[in-house]
Amino acid sequence: MEELFAVNNVWMMLAAALVFVMHLGFAALESGMTQSKNTVNILFKNVFIICAGILTYAACGFSLMYPGDFNGFMGFAGFGLIPGPNGSEISYADGAYTYWTDFLFQAMFAATCLTIVSGAVAERIKLKSFIIFCIPFVAFAYPIAGSWKWGGGFLDALGFYDFAGSTIVHAFGGMAALIGAYLLGSRLGKEKGIFASNLPMATVGTFLLWLGWFGFNGGSVLSADPALTSYVLVTTCLAAAAGGLASIVTSLFITNKADLSMALNGILAGLVSITAGADVVGVLDSIVIGTIGGSLVVVSIMLLDQVLKIDDPVGAVSVHLTCGVWGTLAVGLFSVDHSFFIQLLGVASYLLFSGLISFSLFYTLKNTIGIRVDETEEEIGLDLAEHGCSAYNGSTGTASAFNL
Amino acid sequence: MEELFAVNNVWMMLAAALVFVMHLGFAALESGMTQSKNTVNILFKNVFIICAGILTYAACGFSLMYPGDFNGFMGFAGFGLIPGPNGSEISYADGAYTYWTDFLFQAMFAATCLTIVSGAVAERIKLKSFIIFCIPFVAFAYPIAGSWKWGGGFLDALGFYDFAGSTIVHAFGGMAALIGAYLLGSRLGKEKGIFASNLPMATVGTFLLWLGWFGFNGGSVLSADPALTSYVLVTTCLAAAAGGLASIVTSLFITNKADLSMALNGILAGLVSITAGADVVGVLDSIVIGTIGGSLVVVSIMLLDQVLKIDDPVGAVSVHLTCGVWGTLAVGLFSVDHSFFIQLLGVASYLLFSGLISFSLFYTLKNTIGIRVDETEEEIGLDLAEHGCSAYNGSTGTASAFNL
Amino acid sequence: MEELFAVNNVWMMLAAALVFVMHLGFAALESGMTQSKNTVNILFKNVFIICAGILTYAACGFSLMYPGDFNGFMGFAGFGLIPGPNGSEISYADGAYTYWTDFLFQAMFAATCLTIVSGAVAERIKLKSFIIFCIPFVAFAYPIAGSWKWGGGFLDALGFYDFAGSTIVHAFGGMAALIGAYLLGSRLGKEKGIFASNLPMATVGTFLLWLGWFGFNGGSVLSADPALTSYVLVTTCLAAAAGGLASIVTSLFITNKADLSMALNGILAGLVSITAGADVVGVLDSIVIGTIGGSLVVVSIMLLDQVLKIDDPVGAVSVHLTCGVWGTLAVGLFSVDHSFFIQLLGVASYLLFSGLISFSLFYTLKNTIGIRVDETEEEIGLDLAEHGCSAYNGSTGTASAFNL
Repeated sequence: MEELFAVNNVWMMLAAALVFVMHLGFAALESGMTQSKNTVNILFKNVFIICAGILTYAACGFSLMYPGDFNGFMGFAGFGLIPGPNGSEISYADGAYTYWTDFLFQAMFAATCLTIVSGAVAERIKLKSFIIFCIPFVAFAYPIAGSWKWGGGFLDALGFYDFAGSTIVHAFGGMAALIGAYLLGSRLGKEKGIFASNLPMATVGTFLLWLGWFGFNGGSVLSADPALTSYVLVTTCLAAAAGGLASIVTSLFITNKADLSMALNGILAGLVSITAGADVVGVLDSIVIGTIGGSLVVVSIMLLDQVLKIDDPVGAVSVHLTCGVWGTLAVGLFSVDHSFFIQLLGVASYLLFSGLISFSLFYTLKNTIGIRVDETEEEIGLDLAEHGCSAYNGSTGTASAFNL
Repeated sequence: MEELFAVNNVWMMLAAALVFVMHLGFAALESGMTQSKNTVNILFKNVFIICAGILTYAACGFSLMYPGDFNGFMGFAGFGLIPGPNGSEISYADGAYTYWTDFLFQAMFAATCLTIVSGAVAERIKLKSFIIFCIPFVAFAYPIAGSWKWGGGFLDALGFYDFAGSTIVHAFGGMAALIGAYLLGSRLGKEKGIFASNLPMATVGTFLLWLGWFGFNGGSVLSADPALTSYVLVTTCLAAAAGGLASIVTSLFITNKADLSMALNGILAGLVSITAGADVVGVLDSIVIGTIGGSLVVVSIMLLDQVLKIDDPVGAVSVHLTCGVWGTLAVGLFSVDHSFFIQLLGVASYLLFSGLISFSLFYTLKNTIGIRVDETEEEIGLDLAEHGCSAYNGSTGTASAFNL
Repeated sequence: MEELFAVNNVWMMLAAALVFVMHLGFAALESGMTQSKNTVNILFKNVFIICAGILTYAACGFSLMYPGDFNGFMGFAGFGLIPGPNGSEISYADGAYTYWTDFLFQAMFAATCLTIVSGAVAERIKLKSFIIFCIPFVAFAYPIAGSWKWGGGFLDALGFYDFAGSTIVHAFGGMAALIGAYLLGSRLGKEKGIFASNLPMATVGTFLLWLGWFGFNGGSVLSADPALTSYVLVTTCLAAAAGGLASIVTSLFITNKADLSMALNGILAGLVSITAGADVVGVLDSIVIGTIGGSLVVVSIMLLDQVLKIDDPVGAVSVHLTCGVWGTLAVGLFSVDHSFFIQLLGVASYLLFSGLISFSLFYTLKNTIGIRVDETEEEIGLDLAEHGCSAYNGSTGTASAFNL
């Protein structure tokens, strides 16, 4: 028993470390996909997010998300980290792993939903407004919504299934990303085409996100159960690979180009799509789910860009919202144990809540301190405007990043 | 027993994750070592390789490599992933780890041999031809050859030893890399000197490859056996360190410069060299093997470049073929339990097979759709020619990587 | 028992891998924070350090640091790696993990103290002099000083506490960094402002360092004890997050800018600060310790830069020396079990020893072969001067990194 406790705990701690790696992945992906004049701003936001996300989750998020007995909609177990009656050594959930490991793993998850928003609103949002949006979204909105399922709330009681959070994390963040991008409007110069500044960095970011998903999905088993954890890693990797190839083929068909950015988004699309059902769908199903996700993301990016005219610099809405919804509904289609209708109800609940909260926050900010930088600032770039330095400097640069 | 099963499985899953990291390492190394006008192409190939490698390995590679009872030369256990009679929960090889973990670890290995080829043929190969080469090479050639030893085939019966694949993976891929580079000819402008575009990225890639080798070699123990896994990590790291220093000293002696690229190749040379015997050679032997590997790689790069006039942009042939052969033969020299002659026979078998297959594939492609881009395309770079975008764009770039 | 041995060993091997990642982190951070004309030099130094660090630790460092019975000040267990009487399979410290794992984990630590120096002396030190400094510092000075506490020496006997090395590793390296930077003098052009060349790389490096600290602190438990390892990860992450936010706020207050470099240094400051007491201070204490560390690092950087006029290109002295001292003293303030006076005595012992050794080495070098490159070399950059190549080359570069 002691040994199994130790194994489970090691696996869960490493899963937490891998989810932490996703934050690095997002930072690299987002900074690579956007213009070099806004790179410092993006990196700063990602650094802020992980710091603030962990601290607010310790302050109240964890206790909102796992409140113990509650009414199914909202509960609160108290401020701060409160280990059980046996002190910090107490094991959590029948000897599976410790309270501290549980907190760490969940805290890394919480901050993830913010990074999704960060990409979609990049290159034009005011730093101050973004920060003001972040705090209540990660400290209250995400954990309260999370408690509906993972805290044993009303959606859990109804039988809604979302293994590692296609909807609870990804679509939830993706919906806020959509609202933010919509309220902000397109970046200046969007009509003339805006180019990714550093595709190697974006590729490194995508590989790191894939790696991090070993922990995101593998750790969501909540134990080191050999059959289940390894099965989940296989469906996860098959969906990612299928998503990547599907995006390549789909974009090749549409644009006649071998599109690296689309390949990267396809991998992420496959990963987000399989996240809801990685443990309950079949091996072939995982390939189908990933393939559809990888195709869907290309179509979604085009629709958003060309038809809806919503400017999402990194494709965050298409990857996380579109594929998050797809993956969650796919559980209802590919697993006989789950109802498509309940899956739909769950998705609707999360999108409605995330949409309402993020609209309220962004709309209020827009009509008070404003959410968009002014035109001059956007033109010179957020790096010089908001941070007084550039991301890349030759040996005779013009702005200091380090010197005070 | 249950606990040991769980520990082994956790270690093997993490080893698979670490071998996955090697794909990121190769992508970073190759894109850093080549010209910036071909970066998107290199990244795209590496993204394609991991996706296609995993899927083809699931479709048939795994069943070709581990066919169960067979004639020792080629066998096939059937299409798709087929867990044993007890279903997905069945443990593999006396409770060591699950069928799923086994697949994942081996799938990550399979894709590795392609990334080796990718580097040597970089900056001038037609994307379409590379992709057509990849599929049969990873789906059939690699797993069939792998079965000769790791599937219990004729080389295993003869006593050939290649712990984690100095020859089975590295020299096998390195031979194809040599054939590809030879048939392609040198890059335009090679005689005037071609420069690495991003050495920080190449260095990051090398460190990540070293990290990934913790899983490549450490996982090849196929259990979490404390003494053996940790011993393997020590010989692996000592050989890497010795290889790095040996390359620095050797290139300093020859060129009178402290050569970063050679130091990086020396580390990789040490890693490839120790891979065949990491578990059976002594601590001091591992340092000697790494030192010789690190010196050998410098000489091999110079020979290939100056004498044989074969243009290998990243030194892949010298690192993986030369040092792969050296490492495999070194087992016959440093371990009394293994015959040098049998080691030689094994090496010859793999090089012959890889050479024949890759020559057939590349030669056929060369004489049909062609393997080299035309001169104009090579001059403007594969990124604009094949992908319609550039890897690095200032804030006012001229080509879109993301927008359709 | 066998199972627990395996779990502990897996955890410690992975901790060693994570500390290895810190070397990649330092390489990325330092090369991003400095000028692009000195990037190859910085990368080369970091590659050299890990290689030389592992080999010298195998040759004598490990036996100096853990000499068994000794006089408390210096002892030596013999050259090379010497597993115990039961051979390589022997378990170390009551079945916790193997001798080989122990060596690997400690070897990764040893090389860390050199990377700290590397950053502070960057952009102007002669490569040869740096290398000559490194060898005795990592082969003798660090392990001898380490034995005072971790080898069971006189500071251990006095009750000095430094869990994972705020002082033993970080302040020890930071003191040498200070001496080196002081004796070298400021970089040319410092008064006009020198700019970080690649902040995305610096950010990637910081995230990787944070990740690596999961192993640095988590592995310092020296077992996989669930409660203790997970608790240590929580205090570590809380301190890092608090340090990042504190630096952001402090530098915002002073310079009115949202300073990315300071945010990165704040995270590292939080990590260094919590390292000494991660297992013995409370959850809230860890936040306080990180917050103070994050504020302290900003003040320290300003003091060093503006008042003391010591040029430390990456802030290494402030992060590792200032916060290393703070974290060690904080154990005396926040843990009732430890004496502030003894903590002070320990800190003083390490700083005195590191200061004496590094001053002797650097001063002797300065007055013999010199420690600083000449003015022309510094102006054109160490990359061209010492390595004959540039880190970043366009497709038509002027210097070869790879071709001989």
